[in-house]
Amino acid sequence: MNGTPADHAAFALQGNGFDTLHLQRRATPAPVGAQVLVRMRAASLNYRDLKILEGRYAMPTIRPLVPLSDGAGEIVAVGDGVDAWKPGDRVLPIYMQGWYDGPFGRQPHWRGLGGDVDGTAREYALFDQQDLLAIPDTWSFAEAATLACAAVTAWHALVPVGGVKAGDTVLTLGSGGVSVFALQIATLNGARVIATSSDDAKLARLKALGAAEGVNYRATPDWDRAVRDLTGRRGVDMVVEVGGGDTFDRSIRATRDGGQVLRVGDLSGGVDPSRITVERGVTVTPIVVGSRAMTAEAMHALAAAGTRPVIDRAFPFHDLPAALRHLEAGRHFGKIVIEF
Amino acid sequence: MNGTPADHAAFALQGNGFDTLHLQRRATPAPVGAQVLVRMRAASLNYRDLKILEGRYAMPTIRPLVPLSDGAGEIVAVGDGVDAWKPGDRVLPIYMQGWYDGPFGRQPHWRGLGGDVDGTAREYALFDQQDLLAIPDTWSFAEAATLACAAVTAWHALVPVGGVKAGDTVLTLGSGGVSVFALQIATLNGARVIATSSDDAKLARLKALGAAEGVNYRATPDWDRAVRDLTGRRGVDMVVEVGGGDTFDRSIRATRDGGQVLRVGDLSGGVDPSRITVERGVTVTPIVVGSRAMTAEAMHALAAAGTRPVIDRAFPFHDLPAALRHLEAGRHFGKIVIEF
Amino acid sequence: MNGTPADHAAFALQGNGFDTLHLQRRATPAPVGAQVLVRMRAASLNYRDLKILEGRYAMPTIRPLVPLSDGAGEIVAVGDGVDAWKPGDRVLPIYMQGWYDGPFGRQPHWRGLGGDVDGTAREYALFDQQDLLAIPDTWSFAEAATLACAAVTAWHALVPVGGVKAGDTVLTLGSGGVSVFALQIATLNGARVIATSSDDAKLARLKALGAAEGVNYRATPDWDRAVRDLTGRRGVDMVVEVGGGDTFDRSIRATRDGGQVLRVGDLSGGVDPSRITVERGVTVTPIVVGSRAMTAEAMHALAAAGTRPVIDRAFPFHDLPAALRHLEAGRHFGKIVIEF
Amino acid sequence: MNGTPADHAAFALQGNGFDTLHLQRRATPAPVGAQVLVRMRAASLNYRDLKILEGRYAMPTIRPLVPLSDGAGEIVAVGDGVDAWKPGDRVLPIYMQGWYDGPFGRQPHWRGLGGDVDGTAREYALFDQQDLLAIPDTWSFAEAATLACAAVTAWHALVPVGGVKAGDTVLTLGSGGVSVFALQIATLNGARVIATSSDDAKLARLKALGAAEGVNYRATPDWDRAVRDLTGRRGVDMVVEVGGGDTFDRSIRATRDGGQVLRVGDLSGGVDPSRITVERGVTVTPIVVGSRAMTAEAMHALAAAGTRPVIDRAFPFHDLPAALRHLEAGRHFGKIVIEF
Repeated sequence: MNGTPADHAAFALQGNGFDTLHLQRRATPAPVGAQVLVRMRAASLNYRDLKILEGRYAMPTIRPLVPLSDGAGEIVAVGDGVDAWKPGDRVLPIYMQGWYDGPFGRQPHWRGLGGDVDGTAREYALFDQQDLLAIPDTWSFAEAATLACAAVTAWHALVPVGGVKAGDTVLTLGSGGVSVFALQIATLNGARVIATSSDDAKLARLKALGAAEGVNYRATPDWDRAVRDLTGRRGVDMVVEVGGGDTFDRSIRATRDGGQVLRVGDLSGGVDPSRITVERGVTVTPIVVGSRAMTAEAMHALAAAGTRPVIDRAFPFHDLPAALRHLEAGRHFGKIVIEF
Repeated sequence: MNGTPADHAAFALQGNGFDTLHLQRRATPAPVGAQVLVRMRAASLNYRDLKILEGRYAMPTIRPLVPLSDGAGEIVAVGDGVDAWKPGDRVLPIYMQGWYDGPFGRQPHWRGLGGDVDGTAREYALFDQQDLLAIPDTWSFAEAATLACAAVTAWHALVPVGGVKAGDTVLTLGSGGVSVFALQIATLNGARVIATSSDDAKLARLKALGAAEGVNYRATPDWDRAVRDLTGRRGVDMVVEVGGGDTFDRSIRATRDGGQVLRVGDLSGGVDPSRITVERGVTVTPIVVGSRAMTAEAMHALAAAGTRPVIDRAFPFHDLPAALRHLEAGRHFGKIVIEF
Repeated sequence: MNGTPADHAAFALQGNGFDTLHLQRRATPAPVGAQVLVRMRAASLNYRDLKILEGRYAMPTIRPLVPLSDGAGEIVAVGDGVDAWKPGDRVLPIYMQGWYDGPFGRQPHWRGLGGDVDGTAREYALFDQQDLLAIPDTWSFAEAATLACAAVTAWHALVPVGGVKAGDTVLTLGSGGVSVFALQIATLNGARVIATSSDDAKLARLKALGAAEGVNYRATPDWDRAVRDLTGRRGVDMVVEVGGGDTFDRSIRATRDGGQVLRVGDLSGGVDPSRITVERGVTVTPIVVGSRAMTAEAMHALAAAGTRPVIDRAFPFHDLPAALRHLEAGRHFGKIVIEF
Repeated sequence: MNGTPADHAAFALQGNGFDTLHLQRRATPAPVGAQVLVRMRAASLNYRDLKILEGRYAMPTIRPLVPLSDGAGEIVAVGDGVDAWKPGDRVLPIYMQGWYDGPFGRQPHWRGLGGDVDGTAREYALFDQQDLLAIPDTWSFAEAATLACAAVTAWHALVPVGGVKAGDTVLTLGSGGVSVFALQIATLNGARVIATSSDDAKLARLKALGAAEGVNYRATPDWDRAVRDLTGRRGVDMVVEVGGGDTFDRSIRATRDGGQVLRVGDLSGGVDPSRITVERGVTVTPIVVGSRAMTAEAMHALAAAGTRPVIDRAFPFHDLPAALRHLEAGRHFGKIVIEF
């Protein structure tokens, strides 16, 4: 604990709304047993953070809450029961603490960072040694901090659930964090990606990242038809569906018989899938972020391929509210990070 | 072809509605190549038949159409390219002709009996030798005629998709053909079944068939809550969801986090699953009847266990309209069959 | 810790061989952090324990070693970081500490009880709170102590790997712990079981537990042929192969094309599977006990069905050497336990 | 049938050995029912063809036999029951006629081309319309003729069985047809490939095709150790094991705990896997070529990526014996084809 300050800065959300989010000082804890103390060096933002801030997240969350589920940092001290780590190791905490492997729904207890328990928007944090993973030497803390929610969600959707493989066609929607990772991960696994955006400049960037085709959904309101046309009228094998109510029906229609809609969130409210006809055999699977094993696999696959996370913009730690406003504006491309 | 009559009786649906369904005589064809001529001995009814009759089926169907997708009979003649069958063999035609194995959506062409092509409501029918399966010696033609749609759907939902196993809890809805087979198949695979019905007498019969618990959804409108209570508030592992709009939301709520809703039809119209929250991780899989392999497995499993299909009532062939009216009334328990 | 003695008895294996196994007294530790102190009430034996004792186990093990991987007991004290348990809870430790869920080979670190770390042959033991599972109210400690290795291995082989289902035929070999659990678990899942033994009396007991057929491999040295004959010459769907060199080739031959040999140990030395021809498509999967999730599922499935573990004989704690000699003699039926 | 000659040339194997293989003339048949007449334009060779020729294939084969399982050609006439094809269509016959989809071992009857039934070494051949697939416009007949056995085997091993994904490491052995396709398919799916060869020039070609690393097994007899070193001592995720007795043990040792050995043939005789220890959890799966669905997927994935089959050398049709001698010599790289 040499050099570890007695106290440190942490953001705390006291209620709902931006005006209940404050920076405060907290005593720095000492790790005992299997605990590890991490000096956070970067964090990243997800839509979930906005929903929690605004009090419209689907699950209950604690107050006061240190927000944010994603981060990366350096170990500064370990408890005497720790055998996996040592000070100086570069790590990221997994988002769903306690979910190590296997399908969702059978872990006895897991807790979401920045929701059920305090998150990463603080200078120092304690974790159980099992809830950390080593980060690639070649990645910055900011890059590593983008993984735990968005990349893991995209990997979970496409790889263990979707079973994506060479020859498949994958549809991604927009240029948010999950969608950009989905594009990268689908491409790494040999799939052809069709990406949508309301902005031709963003479509050009998505193609530069590997999308085979882009559809401007503003210019082409019947974008599901355009997507089908790009697949010889057959439909895509799977959609990483981030939109919710505004896009769900078209996503179903853009999918081939027997294909998959992988739902990773509801940007635009509840869906009305009255058109999920049984006859076409399209499975709708909700994707609940993912396990430690999925996090490790996603990170390994990206790093092994030399693929780097796409960072929209980095804000300094104390500008977290501005970073959240930038996310709210919805014009970003990739991940928004904060650096300590 | 000794003894095979030059012509035979067949029902033909000319348009939509009961008054467009007529019995007529047709020339009996001779099998060539890989074709097999089957003398139909029994058939059974499904809701799909009613929907097609009434012109409200989700997929286009041909007219005139010999209705019904399920049947069983005896081979009376074979083409010279047939090596798998001989006259006298007792067989059933699979419902989705041309779908032999593997998941839905990648067979190059399949045709639904009694929808895309003529069905089983006729005294003689030609099939490709690959579209037939042998029926158990111990089963009557009427029993074998119940399998191809309802039992296969229930098997497809619970076994290859649901992965049902000992220790699981399965929810079934009502006492129609699919639900009764689902109860039997789930029980055979070691699962505990919770069954619903609006009628205590039917609940008693469902329990006699193996249901561990029954919930009267008329007496208990919040039946999803009752089902959860029966699982220690955890929720069932999977639901065989036959109801559609009237039951879908409650079925989701009755299912555990990470569980499965296996949709096998829409008795009551489209669903509004705006409450399929991503957070609880419930997968919604539409079940499109099934393949020849699933039909063979379901039949083998039922026969090996000595489990017999439950027949509600048998009508003579020429009373098909009355049998359809009986199905429409919705008070049956198990399968409605016609015998030739 | 009220009433917990300052020291307690534990068996310690100092080297290889029965004469290096001694009972000694050890100080009783106090749990800290996420640790839980369990008063062991029963333990059970596995062949692995004999192999370790005799220095012929395939993996390195520590010395001195408290032997045995299976046990059950009562929580007497918990560390201040424990939120899942309280004193008085009845629990069993999982065998592969740290393997919670998912397939073998991707947990970052796990340790086998009674091999890599001290096992259950002691009156008190500390465990991480994540390495324990609650045991059914209806089970004795002795019954619960039989689960962690043998039942989990049988479950892992048959359910997540084998995908056993109603209509399948499963072959079990002999009447050891894994084989008896395999018989029970296969039967619970609706499979038909063919069991072998060298002893007609044991075959009678195996049939009483649910085996459909028994083959005396002493009376019928070509037992693989007898097994095939019982399946209409097709072969069984899967074998739970516990024998190794003496049985492996026949197990392969008794299995249908495309079937599975689930290898759970080598009673009789290495195998020479030169006859695993590619052409017949028989997969050989080694089964490495199993995860916490598999342990929970196996226990739940057995308890939900009212199936009880089969105990061959119970020895008092201090007679562990006699219990191991009884295992060595190889005439047991089901599990050998010790009670504290 | 305009322009179709009354008779045509076909190779026929009368017994075992090169001197029993003769070119002869046969009457050209007319397609009836669901049959299709294909004018063969190219074929390719596999080790199986050599084994059958030499009478050492593991399964019985017919005599006289038109050899070869792989080919491609053009439809010249169709029976009146054919609805999927028309004259002029470019097609390849699947190798395992009658196996359309699903896992090996549950198709009721399938027949291997060039083994159970006459193969592709003839100018005209009849096929059932279900046993053909369309070939990509961009591929020559020679390229398409390489697919049905080697590429399908490699796809079956790596994709549906191996579940290969980005971040995995795959080991391939040598530069035969299956191994070169395995390298291409693994690479397309985002895996890193380690390839072995006895020849540095071939290793250079394998790297040019996408291998990340090459190991010369002549220069490095302990090549399994070299492979492990290239994976940080962890071992590869899966091996496409074509060698058999000479390589099997080392392939096991080169594989990570919980990894997979995908056995696709025995170049060098039976294996002695006495070292398949259960403890390391390596699954050994025999790969029996594959289904129509796998053939379609492999072809689609290769064509969509613009990956072309690697042809070692093309011989004219009448030089089939010389082509077989070239295969026997074992110095080829990729596939040996014959052109009509």
